[in-house]
Amino acid sequence: MEAKANGLNGEYSGRLIDGPTNPMVTPLLTDQYQFTMAYAYWKAGKHQERAVFDLYFRKNPFRGEYTVFAGLEECIRFIANFKFTEEEIDFLRQTLPSSCEDRFFDYLRGIDCSDVEVYAVPEGSVVFPKVPLLRVEGPIAVVQLLETPFVNLINYASLVTTNAARHRFVAGKSKILLEFGLRRAQGPDGGIGASKYCYIGGFDATSNVAAGRLFGIPLRGTHSHAFVSSFMSPDEIIDKSLLSSDGSSTCEDFVSLAQTWLSKIQWSNPLRGIFGETNQSELAAFTSYALAFPNHFLALVDTYDVVRSGIPNFCAVALALNDLGYKAAGIRLDSGDLAYLSSEARKFFRTIEKEFGVPGFGKMIITASNDLNEETLDALNKQGHDVDAFGIGTYLVTCYAQAALGVVFKLVEINNQPRIKLSEDVSKVSIPCKKRSYRLYGRESYPLVDIMTGENEPPPKVGERILCRHPFNESKRAYVVPQRVEELLKCYWPGTSGKEREILPSLKDIRERCIKQLEQMRPDHMRRLNPTPYKVSVSAKLYDFIHFLWLNEAPVGELQ
Amino acid sequence: MEAKANGLNGEYSGRLIDGPTNPMVTPLLTDQYQFTMAYAYWKAGKHQERAVFDLYFRKNPFRGEYTVFAGLEECIRFIANFKFTEEEIDFLRQTLPSSCEDRFFDYLRGIDCSDVEVYAVPEGSVVFPKVPLLRVEGPIAVVQLLETPFVNLINYASLVTTNAARHRFVAGKSKILLEFGLRRAQGPDGGIGASKYCYIGGFDATSNVAAGRLFGIPLRGTHSHAFVSSFMSPDEIIDKSLLSSDGSSTCEDFVSLAQTWLSKIQWSNPLRGIFGETNQSELAAFTSYALAFPNHFLALVDTYDVVRSGIPNFCAVALALNDLGYKAAGIRLDSGDLAYLSSEARKFFRTIEKEFGVPGFGKMIITASNDLNEETLDALNKQGHDVDAFGIGTYLVTCYAQAALGVVFKLVEINNQPRIKLSEDVSKVSIPCKKRSYRLYGRESYPLVDIMTGENEPPPKVGERILCRHPFNESKRAYVVPQRVEELLKCYWPGTSGKEREILPSLKDIRERCIKQLEQMRPDHMRRLNPTPYKVSVSAKLYDFIHFLWLNEAPVGELQ
Repeated sequence: MEAKANGLNGEYSGRLIDGPTNPMVTPLLTDQYQFTMAYAYWKAGKHQERAVFDLYFRKNPFRGEYTVFAGLEECIRFIANFKFTEEEIDFLRQTLPSSCEDRFFDYLRGIDCSDVEVYAVPEGSVVFPKVPLLRVEGPIAVVQLLETPFVNLINYASLVTTNAARHRFVAGKSKILLEFGLRRAQGPDGGIGASKYCYIGGFDATSNVAAGRLFGIPLRGTHSHAFVSSFMSPDEIIDKSLLSSDGSSTCEDFVSLAQTWLSKIQWSNPLRGIFGETNQSELAAFTSYALAFPNHFLALVDTYDVVRSGIPNFCAVALALNDLGYKAAGIRLDSGDLAYLSSEARKFFRTIEKEFGVPGFGKMIITASNDLNEETLDALNKQGHDVDAFGIGTYLVTCYAQAALGVVFKLVEINNQPRIKLSEDVSKVSIPCKKRSYRLYGRESYPLVDIMTGENEPPPKVGERILCRHPFNESKRAYVVPQRVEELLKCYWPGTSGKEREILPSLKDIRERCIKQLEQMRPDHMRRLNPTPYKVSVSAKLYDFIHFLWLNEAPVGELQ
Repeated sequence: MEAKANGLNGEYSGRLIDGPTNPMVTPLLTDQYQFTMAYAYWKAGKHQERAVFDLYFRKNPFRGEYTVFAGLEECIRFIANFKFTEEEIDFLRQTLPSSCEDRFFDYLRGIDCSDVEVYAVPEGSVVFPKVPLLRVEGPIAVVQLLETPFVNLINYASLVTTNAARHRFVAGKSKILLEFGLRRAQGPDGGIGASKYCYIGGFDATSNVAAGRLFGIPLRGTHSHAFVSSFMSPDEIIDKSLLSSDGSSTCEDFVSLAQTWLSKIQWSNPLRGIFGETNQSELAAFTSYALAFPNHFLALVDTYDVVRSGIPNFCAVALALNDLGYKAAGIRLDSGDLAYLSSEARKFFRTIEKEFGVPGFGKMIITASNDLNEETLDALNKQGHDVDAFGIGTYLVTCYAQAALGVVFKLVEINNQPRIKLSEDVSKVSIPCKKRSYRLYGRESYPLVDIMTGENEPPPKVGERILCRHPFNESKRAYVVPQRVEELLKCYWPGTSGKEREILPSLKDIRERCIKQLEQMRPDHMRRLNPTPYKVSVSAKLYDFIHFLWLNEAPVGELQ
């Protein structure tokens, strides 16, 4: 883009900020009505009026009581480089009614986000309904254009991060979690975004090479069923030699070594009768894979039959590797009863360890995949299993259990006048005013409640009692004496305010923040079944003001 | 990309094929295991072996009995430009085990898809489980690298196209369907893809400006609640003048004209008492929007109260426009009981038409939005409503009812040897062999059955009886005498085969094909409740071969 090349945009405090990860995220990636509104604002001479919008969601996803906020960095990268190209202006001119005045397009040509301020909760924070994730201030016509891309960039990011965090919660800290979702994701950057945000939410690695390259996320991968079935028999392996791990000797016929081990296992006392003839194309595939990756031998064992073919074939090749000083990595199960099969595999490995005196063989890593989700992980835990690592795809990345988060962007103030959006559905009434928000912590260092106040109200103080009111239910209120007070919104894009800009943290730092924040929550908010809602409140003053404004704006009915 | 710039890739028969719409779709957008397998194939000297893969899905989505195939053009654009850059090779070198030989990276550097053949069902076709959507042939290491991007590009595309088609089916042909999903889509090109594929599936327009620009899809948009609540009162409108439609006169105070109409409506006999004082900020917003778009005045009427404020305010402004020779477009409802409110609005409009003698006012377009999906459209139809156009977002673009389609890519032949993938779950057993597939049509010109045959079997003939067998259930079989036979797979990327390449059709042509194909299906396959499954079969010869191979590969159990 021209704007990037000349460095006029994207530059902030002398430092360039990269554009969005996906170059398709341009100022045109917005709804058409943002442009018709921009024109109407401009035509009415209102386009420069200073507006304040809150970005928030109304309900936690996945029947849970928490959400992880993500997508902020992409929003900042977007506004740091926000500038229309001439081609984009031309397209808009064609698409808007021909009655639109030329001077409007001159105006569009000139705009950027230098006059916009963005305050946000740090990326990777645990967040709750109604409390602003972002507060965006600026000329109304410009801020309005940001609505759709901001909501788009935050919606899925926060949803899939939360989904990943929930999977981590069920799997437990000690398990390895691998994101395998690229092929089933909703489009290419559905896949790339999923890999990034699942990593933030607590996954350990991804299969997605492009995401590994873009974000430095660790990569994992072995082979597929097609690899296994592409082989016919061990005879087709041409180069059968393998140098030993220490380089001291060469095994000239690794294939025979594996075959010898297979018959040793088959006729060993404790394993006799468990399996007959194993699938020879599978043995060929495993042997071949071991020859390519003697230090990273991990085999997919369910192409033909896990217990009667895959596991014995794997063990034969692993024992042959062991003879040469290599240590096999483990197996992957991709179908069938994962609890049963993982336990059978573990028993088999332990028997091998004992029978053939191979220390550590019993601890071989067992990876499981195949349509895993929160429920199946939970069921596996309840049943008992011997899986060390889970590869999770479809349900994780598409957020199958709930495919969207309802993030909204609402006008709360214009020209210092508070604005409210009414609705017959109380949960859809917006909380007016430019606000501040705080997280109040209790004695046990758990967060107790989030509270929103008017911008100019004094902040809650440690050790000082404050009344926290439900924004819409007059009977729900509680006094809180906070032990710690944390202001939630920080300045990520100061515009012309002169405020200091928060630095965008690295992906690893965001991930660490997320994991810490999740750990510090009171457990009853986090459990899967009937979690306790975390309290979200407004100050007494803000409460009164909301209801004054509400009565003021709503028409009085007439019963007939 | 270097490869694109020098025109070596992407060129076919002297014509350049553009790269994928999303520039992030590169050869690295694949699973890590495709590279570890490529290395293992290369190391075993197998990488050039000619493999045939089928891409298909196992089950129709949304509890339906049909699917629309989409995403083909993006796949062809991808392979037409498939080439690794030096940076990509460097990254792969870092990410694969250091034991990988240098010559492998030389090999990667040299590969492209000139030796790959792709046969596919035309994009926009109605398709069914198990029947290949794509047959991909080529050197196994290269074709394997294509698996993940192909599945990614087809999975969501086909899913969301099918979802759009289902929404169109429920809404009926006469309604206007608008895709409004960008903000809730799974990432930026989740949104862009949704706009493209919903258009193919039968939607009329999108709100997504970037998609409008990229694909030429008609754009729609008006204003949001924020626009309405950004106004305080009609007093703030500075330029109140409006030139009449024919340019013959200027109304100096359009605001007063609207206000006059408002009180005329309020005190007219048939409307007296329906509403009291309407919301003045809303009236200001509507007036201002009309001044900006006198020829395209469409108002969102639910910011404060639809019946007591939004509709009367809209009518006042629309009547003022009518005085100056303009015709208002209509209203949008975004909350509440859409059946009731649309009927109330329609009654109001008809009363105005009659009372004030404004022909056509009763036919004002009523657009409804707010979390619509197949079920709510169906419920609205059953209840009766007066909506002309539906704006559908979240449920459409995220495919909320089922967020993924299980497209798979399975090896069916290597070196002319058929391969099978077994599974304890019969529905997961792959159908081996390089195959052809045909759609057989019956007397009433409905498609009757799809049949797969071996590549060299004689094709089914019109008027000649052929036995169609269920691939896995021996008792399910039927004789068919086709009235028409259509071969399903066409050559979209001939590789070195010398075959003629099918031209990629335009988006409009794909959309038309989709609509026609859906119309020609027998209605009982298409209905929402308990649809009849469409029959998918194999020839008698292929049936026998599948089961011969199955017995051959599966290990024999030993009961203990």
